Amino acid sequence: MSAGNRRIVLAVRPAGDPGPEHFRRDDAPLEALADGQFLVRNQYLSIDPAQRGWLQGGAGYSEPVPVGGVMRSLAVGAVTASRDGRYAVGDHLYGWFGWQDFCVATAERVLARVDPGNGPVRAGLGLYGIPGLTAYLALNDIGRPRPAEIVLVTTAAGAVGSVVGQLARRANCQVLGLAGSDAKAALCTAEFGYHAALNYRAGLDPQRLGQLCPDGVDVLFDNTGGEIADAVWPLLRPRGRIVQCGTAAVGAWEPPPRGPRHERLVLVRRLRHEGFIVFDHVARFPEVIAQLAALARSGALVFHEDLETGLDRAPAALAGLFRGENRGKKLVQIAAGERAL
Amino acid sequence: MSAGNRRIVLAVRPAGDPGPEHFRRDDAPLEALADGQFLVRNQYLSIDPAQRGWLQGGAGYSEPVPVGGVMRSLAVGAVTASRDGRYAVGDHLYGWFGWQDFCVATAERVLARVDPGNGPVRAGLGLYGIPGLTAYLALNDIGRPRPAEIVLVTTAAGAVGSVVGQLARRANCQVLGLAGSDAKAALCTAEFGYHAALNYRAGLDPQRLGQLCPDGVDVLFDNTGGEIADAVWPLLRPRGRIVQCGTAAVGAWEPPPRGPRHERLVLVRRLRHEGFIVFDHVARFPEVIAQLAALARSGALVFHEDLETGLDRAPAALAGLFRGENRGKKLVQIAAGERAL
Repeated sequence: MSAGNRRIVLAVRPAGDPGPEHFRRDDAPLEALADGQFLVRNQYLSIDPAQRGWLQGGAGYSEPVPVGGVMRSLAVGAVTASRDGRYAVGDHLYGWFGWQDFCVATAERVLARVDPGNGPVRAGLGLYGIPGLTAYLALNDIGRPRPAEIVLVTTAAGAVGSVVGQLARRANCQVLGLAGSDAKAALCTAEFGYHAALNYRAGLDPQRLGQLCPDGVDVLFDNTGGEIADAVWPLLRPRGRIVQCGTAAVGAWEPPPRGPRHERLVLVRRLRHEGFIVFDHVARFPEVIAQLAALARSGALVFHEDLETGLDRAPAALAGLFRGENRGKKLVQIAAGERAL
Repeated sequence: MSAGNRRIVLAVRPAGDPGPEHFRRDDAPLEALADGQFLVRNQYLSIDPAQRGWLQGGAGYSEPVPVGGVMRSLAVGAVTASRDGRYAVGDHLYGWFGWQDFCVATAERVLARVDPGNGPVRAGLGLYGIPGLTAYLALNDIGRPRPAEIVLVTTAAGAVGSVVGQLARRANCQVLGLAGSDAKAALCTAEFGYHAALNYRAGLDPQRLGQLCPDGVDVLFDNTGGEIADAVWPLLRPRGRIVQCGTAAVGAWEPPPRGPRHERLVLVRRLRHEGFIVFDHVARFPEVIAQLAALARSGALVFHEDLETGLDRAPAALAGLFRGENRGKKLVQIAAGERAL
């Protein structure tokens, strides 16, 4: 193969939100496949809030991306050559294939197979990918909503939140949302199963939030942390659960930011606050994908995607996430025509 | 009966730690028993850190003690008259009998029967009372220690902590303690099953704490909250559990005090932070008391009591708790001779 694998690498480690200035193109030749390797041609790249954390040097759940390394990213692609008998040319895979045209992969990089029978293969990054899997597993494993309980979701219209809203509604809960704009709040009630939703950028004073949830909150599905979550915590009911699924509202953790202490609320209301990382549950992905696909086929689940085209757009697309610009799950499609190979 | 029931009532609601200045004597006549009532003559009063919370006006797990009302307190006493067939004269009971000589009680006030066969009846307030029950239930239900895991206990030499240490040691854990003096830290290792313990008043800088727990912490059994717990949180290992059993190190919660944000640690290390209130588990008390009594009979559990004599000493004894003066579970014995009746 020629010297044309386009790659986007980390140029300089960002202190806060990542932007295009932290990345650069660094194309490189593709090595020949060794035994056990296979070549994946990326079709769609996933742009995820968690990528900010993968870039930071401090405590995380995974090693930070090294400076000079290809940006870590989930992607859906097709196998174009293989020296691993489990993966055949033409198979569609979901895995850690990075911000590049091609990935010389081994089996550890694969999270799931993508079944084109479940819809367009890009759904492998969205409804059947980390967002849908996170929503399903975190809500059920940690939130454990019971009928008639009150579920409040921060980033309610986001890729994860939009699925949480629909699943909680199907579980016969009262479902409330906080979203980053009036338009997103309107989407929550129109499309994502929420009974009511607010734009948190218009302020979360106790009176306004009290109108949204006059009877408190049993399950706080929190993707933001920070001041948005702070406003909700005092409304938690006895034996409430807080699913910590992200901390998107806090830009940096070094030095450790301060906020209201929670230990008294945890104690007197017997709260349970638990963190969730979907990659702990890879073995259950096929079973959950089947559940989500059945719901989607019956029309019971909608999922919005926000598609951009061109590998070089990936850094700007990531930066846009933290400005709330995306409408649905952010994906970057690698157009067949743009490849040099 | 005569007009001689000595009672200690709340005179003025304390803003922070309670002291003698917040209470007054207010003796009153005893009413005749109605159907369903019985008379308990208090023998031992329990002095508990949680009493501070029962005096505060803000959010709590129970109604605050009203100004002018008898101070809420657990006690062990003997039935001296009864119009409830379930309680006979001579029965020893553990319940909500207050800081007074006699309590005209109904069944709702009883937490457990005290079996003199398990040892002196005052053990009904200690090893077989809230401290022992809390240690057993909170450690096992929330902490769920597995063999070889590392358990760290704040207030390690206290009434609850001393039992947690011994139970965690029996569960084959590595058991570490933080206590409020060098003498208490020494007690932890000499008597309460701890492998090592530190005096937190000598400072909890990362280096000193790192020497105590170089491999981190799997279960933080926290009775303090505040800065003591803050020092331990960064040492929690993936899938660590934080048992929030008290918040003794934080004097007031209005306005809400601030501290380091925990949501990122909760997320990336998949921590579980849960509050525990022993009164949620009253139905299980007889079963747990039997377990604790079996251990104590076999010599596998020691329990220290710090006994004071005289009803009027109760307010000062409570204040002393927050200065760390007690050595073991604080009890006030009501001497038979001091009663006016």
